[in-house]
Amino acid sequence: MTIIITAFERSPDGGKGLARDTRVRWALEEVGQPYDVRLVSFRAMKEPAHLALHPFGQIPTYEEGDLALFETGAIVLHIAERHGGLLPTDADARARAIAWMFAAVNTVEPPILDLATARILESNKPWAEERLPLVEDRIRTRLAQLAARLGHADWLDGAFSAADLMMVSVLLRLRSSGLLDEHPPLAAYVARGEARPAYKRAFAAQLAVNSR
Amino acid sequence: MTIIITAFERSPDGGKGLARDTRVRWALEEVGQPYDVRLVSFRAMKEPAHLALHPFGQIPTYEEGDLALFETGAIVLHIAERHGGLLPTDADARARAIAWMFAAVNTVEPPILDLATARILESNKPWAEERLPLVEDRIRTRLAQLAARLGHADWLDGAFSAADLMMVSVLLRLRSSGLLDEHPPLAAYVARGEARPAYKRAFAAQLAVNSR
Repeated sequence: MTIIITAFERSPDGGKGLARDTRVRWALEEVGQPYDVRLVSFRAMKEPAHLALHPFGQIPTYEEGDLALFETGAIVLHIAERHGGLLPTDADARARAIAWMFAAVNTVEPPILDLATARILESNKPWAEERLPLVEDRIRTRLAQLAARLGHADWLDGAFSAADLMMVSVLLRLRSSGLLDEHPPLAAYVARGEARPAYKRAFAAQLAVNSR
Repeated sequence: MTIIITAFERSPDGGKGLARDTRVRWALEEVGQPYDVRLVSFRAMKEPAHLALHPFGQIPTYEEGDLALFETGAIVLHIAERHGGLLPTDADARARAIAWMFAAVNTVEPPILDLATARILESNKPWAEERLPLVEDRIRTRLAQLAARLGHADWLDGAFSAADLMMVSVLLRLRSSGLLDEHPPLAAYVARGEARPAYKRAFAAQLAVNSR
């Protein structure tokens, strides 16, 4: 069955790989599954046809025969469960990898998204400049905790897994902030993710869409 | 093997059931698994012994023999995968339920946590009053989308599942804000969750800790 994902017709980041379809593309490249892409405009994302696939009007979505999924974390987990290479086979190690996937989107990403909100949506507000350090410090707390756990390991828990795919993808959003460089081992961790051939193929595919 | 979870020695909410151990207690009650609780102080949460279990120094954690997990979503999913009653048996329906679990913590909860940040951590800031409506409107957007999808159904996708357990738990945080009551079907959805005997047992157990 053909896998079809959705992506922005024109990504807000202009092709820097930060839109969430890159995470799904990366997972599919890691497991060697081909896929088709349906591009959607900002307007189409809020229309009934897309809302039927994604109740919150976002991308990516994932279709495979009768199955339709939304939420990047769930899509990546679905891919990892059905194809080898993204989750450990040991049951306990597998559960720990899933814990890191949730940590990426529920504990590490929210303060990082707050930074985007502060810098973009609230950039013209009178409090923008004074509030920014508070937002950045909440990210710093998380990065210090993550760096302490990672130590000098290559990946979060043994071999590369969907946990690292998700965590690297979340941390990539910090590149332009300089915050990642406060922890060289974390910056090196992200660079290891970006160096994977599957990531490079995923990045190139989304860039091709946004370079047209 | 005995299941051991961690919870606040004294919850910041004083026993309103909003601390995340309630979600894990609820899941364990739904599947009929007994568990022990180890209470941790705010200071102990940031010490090495607890950080070894939870890299971000939070509760709950989950221990079962050699397995140690953190992240509520992952713990609830682990419980749901190992015991019947919280996930559909059909593979596609199961994948959709997991998508809703991720949606609860990654799409619906972040703006709700922002409201707590605005009201508590930033309540004494000069921008507090003027910024609050922006934060509330971001929640309203999510609630309207969720209400549109739920319609008049009892649960998100067929029978009650871990998806509803997570979504109801996230929405419960809005009780005191009044925002939930702007969508009576959503308020009724949350009330259906709270009416479940397993939820009532979980709520009573955390209240007992906080009433000592």
